[in-house]
Amino acid sequence: MVIVMSSQATQQEVDRVVGRIREAGLQAHVSCGEFKTIIGVIGDKKIISALPIEAFCGVEKTVPITSSYKLVSRGFQVDRRIVDVAGVKIGDGSLVVMAGPCAVESLEQLLGCAEVVKQSGAQFLRGGAFKPRTSPYSFQGLDKTGLEYLAEAGKVTGLKIVTEVIDVASLELAAGYVDMVQIGARNMQNFQLLRAVGKLGKPVLLKRGLAATIEEWLNAAEYIVSEGNFDVVLCERGIRTFEEYTRNTLDLSAVSAVQHLSNLPIIVDPSHGTGKWRLVQPMSMAAVAAGADGLMVEMHTNPAEALSDGPQSLNPANFLQLMNDVAELKSFLQGRLIK
Amino acid sequence: MVIVMSSQATQQEVDRVVGRIREAGLQAHVSCGEFKTIIGVIGDKKIISALPIEAFCGVEKTVPITSSYKLVSRGFQVDRRIVDVAGVKIGDGSLVVMAGPCAVESLEQLLGCAEVVKQSGAQFLRGGAFKPRTSPYSFQGLDKTGLEYLAEAGKVTGLKIVTEVIDVASLELAAGYVDMVQIGARNMQNFQLLRAVGKLGKPVLLKRGLAATIEEWLNAAEYIVSEGNFDVVLCERGIRTFEEYTRNTLDLSAVSAVQHLSNLPIIVDPSHGTGKWRLVQPMSMAAVAAGADGLMVEMHTNPAEALSDGPQSLNPANFLQLMNDVAELKSFLQGRLIK
Amino acid sequence: MVIVMSSQATQQEVDRVVGRIREAGLQAHVSCGEFKTIIGVIGDKKIISALPIEAFCGVEKTVPITSSYKLVSRGFQVDRRIVDVAGVKIGDGSLVVMAGPCAVESLEQLLGCAEVVKQSGAQFLRGGAFKPRTSPYSFQGLDKTGLEYLAEAGKVTGLKIVTEVIDVASLELAAGYVDMVQIGARNMQNFQLLRAVGKLGKPVLLKRGLAATIEEWLNAAEYIVSEGNFDVVLCERGIRTFEEYTRNTLDLSAVSAVQHLSNLPIIVDPSHGTGKWRLVQPMSMAAVAAGADGLMVEMHTNPAEALSDGPQSLNPANFLQLMNDVAELKSFLQGRLIK
Amino acid sequence: MVIVMSSQATQQEVDRVVGRIREAGLQAHVSCGEFKTIIGVIGDKKIISALPIEAFCGVEKTVPITSSYKLVSRGFQVDRRIVDVAGVKIGDGSLVVMAGPCAVESLEQLLGCAEVVKQSGAQFLRGGAFKPRTSPYSFQGLDKTGLEYLAEAGKVTGLKIVTEVIDVASLELAAGYVDMVQIGARNMQNFQLLRAVGKLGKPVLLKRGLAATIEEWLNAAEYIVSEGNFDVVLCERGIRTFEEYTRNTLDLSAVSAVQHLSNLPIIVDPSHGTGKWRLVQPMSMAAVAAGADGLMVEMHTNPAEALSDGPQSLNPANFLQLMNDVAELKSFLQGRLIK
Repeated sequence: MVIVMSSQATQQEVDRVVGRIREAGLQAHVSCGEFKTIIGVIGDKKIISALPIEAFCGVEKTVPITSSYKLVSRGFQVDRRIVDVAGVKIGDGSLVVMAGPCAVESLEQLLGCAEVVKQSGAQFLRGGAFKPRTSPYSFQGLDKTGLEYLAEAGKVTGLKIVTEVIDVASLELAAGYVDMVQIGARNMQNFQLLRAVGKLGKPVLLKRGLAATIEEWLNAAEYIVSEGNFDVVLCERGIRTFEEYTRNTLDLSAVSAVQHLSNLPIIVDPSHGTGKWRLVQPMSMAAVAAGADGLMVEMHTNPAEALSDGPQSLNPANFLQLMNDVAELKSFLQGRLIK
Repeated sequence: MVIVMSSQATQQEVDRVVGRIREAGLQAHVSCGEFKTIIGVIGDKKIISALPIEAFCGVEKTVPITSSYKLVSRGFQVDRRIVDVAGVKIGDGSLVVMAGPCAVESLEQLLGCAEVVKQSGAQFLRGGAFKPRTSPYSFQGLDKTGLEYLAEAGKVTGLKIVTEVIDVASLELAAGYVDMVQIGARNMQNFQLLRAVGKLGKPVLLKRGLAATIEEWLNAAEYIVSEGNFDVVLCERGIRTFEEYTRNTLDLSAVSAVQHLSNLPIIVDPSHGTGKWRLVQPMSMAAVAAGADGLMVEMHTNPAEALSDGPQSLNPANFLQLMNDVAELKSFLQGRLIK
Repeated sequence: MVIVMSSQATQQEVDRVVGRIREAGLQAHVSCGEFKTIIGVIGDKKIISALPIEAFCGVEKTVPITSSYKLVSRGFQVDRRIVDVAGVKIGDGSLVVMAGPCAVESLEQLLGCAEVVKQSGAQFLRGGAFKPRTSPYSFQGLDKTGLEYLAEAGKVTGLKIVTEVIDVASLELAAGYVDMVQIGARNMQNFQLLRAVGKLGKPVLLKRGLAATIEEWLNAAEYIVSEGNFDVVLCERGIRTFEEYTRNTLDLSAVSAVQHLSNLPIIVDPSHGTGKWRLVQPMSMAAVAAGADGLMVEMHTNPAEALSDGPQSLNPANFLQLMNDVAELKSFLQGRLIK
Repeated sequence: MVIVMSSQATQQEVDRVVGRIREAGLQAHVSCGEFKTIIGVIGDKKIISALPIEAFCGVEKTVPITSSYKLVSRGFQVDRRIVDVAGVKIGDGSLVVMAGPCAVESLEQLLGCAEVVKQSGAQFLRGGAFKPRTSPYSFQGLDKTGLEYLAEAGKVTGLKIVTEVIDVASLELAAGYVDMVQIGARNMQNFQLLRAVGKLGKPVLLKRGLAATIEEWLNAAEYIVSEGNFDVVLCERGIRTFEEYTRNTLDLSAVSAVQHLSNLPIIVDPSHGTGKWRLVQPMSMAAVAAGADGLMVEMHTNPAEALSDGPQSLNPANFLQLMNDVAELKSFLQGRLIK
């Protein structure tokens, strides 16, 4: 951390800050510029981050130098992790696709979707049993019945199953039915849920929060990993900005940024990221070209009858075309690497 | 809802949309403009919001006309509600102040703070027993012990107690110790928690989410109220923007906007809203002048030793001065209304 | 500036950075932490900011420590400036109000508005002769004729005149007719215009850009002041965020922040800041309570017939009430200071 | 446009609004819902957008239905335009690359860069002669000398030249030296400059403003085209968000959105879009995969000595690798289309 003293700070105020730092067992390096004095603080980052230095008189601001996450950083482990979900590897250089309806609506609907997903070559079936919705009057999901249908669809097709959990109760329930649990954007900083999923030890898909910086996102992952569960896959799904044409602004730079900063795999959800089915194909192509480890895509056998997120769901024909497109692109990109 | 058809939409596509609307028991009014056809949809808003119209061919976009919340709107009840918390009224035209440390650190610290709060004329003591923190390595709160200290401080001073709950377990625990529970910004769309607090029936302070629109915030309140608990007070605490000087951007327009749209009282938290103690006094004055029903302010007997949020906490001298300032301002404003 | 080296940086890379810094005549202080090396750079800030240090191998990031503006900072001059516009002082502790229609539409309309402004006790008449509009098909202003009407209205009422200029040509034209020129939000970083207005030496009202940080805004002011024109008044008018209920998000914290960082006066425009006339009164009260040096308010004798910004304009009755409200509030606040 | 009346609006208020609409020669369709009355307005969009309907009593809000731009829309011309710049076609399905240093620093530097650009197969040399900079103390460009160097480099290499203009004076000056003029992000709504460039008739590269919606961006293009100059190419270069890791957030969804809404070609600038040279390659690949018509990339023969934007500039080796990568990717994608 670097502490910037205000230009009117007295020597006594500087001394008091330095004293407090040394008292905490940290080192303080003082540099006097023409207008301002700055103090570099070196030592254990947990101790540093606990000091409320800005509350001292004469302090203008503090500037953090190192990130506060550790286990998920490449500084801690340079090699990027490969997460194994029931035999499917994420982060090993291949492209993993998770697809299916936003919400599980009925066994028939789900099996219809699962068949298309299976046929497409995707590895995961997604589908929501617990649906967090902005309005209390929207469809909220089938709960346990939805999980049973998902498990059934997994058994029939051999697809791996991923579903969103929204609290500790739904997590405990889902754990018995699915291969991977998803923490949604709205729960990215639901720290109790992060710890619980960290203790459970099941593979986790951690979506980025609507207004979360990459730093906060990696700290959320750190909560899970610090409980001993290293099987975390990140999912970029768009951030909230002033632009209204798209539902969110898909931040594809985050793919490269995360791969530079963290050892965790990262996939992209262009369906939520854009909110428009017409943009799903181009943004999927872009995500693969940017180096994403996978995709999560909403597909519905009849988007116009879907109970949730119809406007951003692909129909089977468009989805199969998309899968063909991304598979060819991935294969082209891998071919270039081998050369 | 208004449906805008794309300029290339065929008559058949228009007919298919109109057919689907009428099938759902709704009315469709078709208007043909020079370039585009638009379809107005009238009927039960729950049915309307469940139709995935944008997934139909030929649809350019849909435009919602009415808000999706109902019970918390002034359309439903014009008169603004007064929330009674153990005898203290919020929303009756007076100014209610909730103050205290960010986190409960020890009984001694809390009683020291409570004494200052009591002396200042504020009605509520705030203090966190459960602390959601960005990094897993920061101080996370005293849990049940913190609640016991809060209850003790309430008994000693007669102050009402408000504390944040972070999941159903902490909610059930806290209910026995405090007068009002707070849902923090990160949990504003933790719908399970909203429902649970709605069923519990205890007064709730609902903070605005970091990236929540006013519409989403009122929908979150609707979750609580739709379970039968009308004792909801909203709290503006800053939204996330590109500006970095302040921790968040305090959106004081939201005070007037909420009072225009909703029947719930609204208070302002300038401490989190700015993240800088120097800005707490001017933003408190501004909030009162804007018509807020109350304030939530962080105060610590020794900000430089606080375990959480020291930089935005006032010390006792500044806090007492602030209370004096806002009380005089409020009294001036009330005097003008009486004339 | 502080340079953070990546955790994999070699000693040679550190040496190369340090060499480059010293070569530029600056001092480099190297501190080695557990994981990372950081380098503090001290010296002339113009030289520092010209070094592309992040392009060196091994550099993770650079962190600026001091602001890049100088003349407008309180570090350069602690006392806040008072700007004198044809005898009216801005920043002397009084409240200055600038009011009038968004656009000058006709002499009759303008004189009608000017009369109300005069009657209200406001000191400035505002009105746009050159209108920058999002669409090329919207009303674009009366140009020179508008300036003539403004000068006429000034002569008749004795009000000072402020109008927006949009390029060097309109600046040169307006200079002969008005007392103060305004740089609008869209031109805040039109650096040619800033320099031209700096050389002209007429008082300037510099609005904050839609997406400008306070730092960038003060740098824009520095452009004007560095040409020798110190008569700059800042105007907060809302920033662009995700919230859609208001046209912009009025950032009242910026008032206190600017007063802490800069020696320039600052006023607030709640009309553009909210885009809704219902919010103008409460946000004006809030701005005054926050310590703003003045207000800029849109008023029209017939908002429903206005050619521009009708929805955010007050009618005469509401405007006169507002002026009464803010005058009483200001007088109350000044009375408290005197005690 | 759709007008939503407030739930308390009287019949008289509805009638007054309808009267005003019909008086303006427009049609009004009134629909009465359970809680609210809405009024659809049909007719000439220029007349509609000039009505300040929200200023009428009883009006809750107005909702625009159609975009305000026309000539640049696909509704006006379905086929996407091909812009010809001195023989190089943009928008014809090929990939056009513009590369070079941020700022022209010397003839030697520029020729060195131009040689690499030529060798890479890119078609355009970019370089700034006029540099708009946040701080008045940063390097501001070589002005006319810079233009002479650019023209010289064009002559030597045969590359087309594109440079940024910042006002009418620099536009008139640059027109004699370069093949294409660029309007930078900060000037996207400098409407005088847009009109001037529209009249000049030279090909224009119009960058997206920092905080501009796609709608506003297309309206800015409409300013140019409405003056008779159809040779406009759009350039996505990142928008301002809360994320701080990248300099801006590159909005690649805008590529597809623009191609859906507008007939103009669109290219992507990943250098400004991310601010980090490490992200330029992956975001270039992503842009090409998303279907962009070209790229604009910063390259410098010695980024560590660049006077501007060094941290985001590629060195020659990385740039040549990038050009190889995107050329192969483009050729792969074109091959798939032919099948």
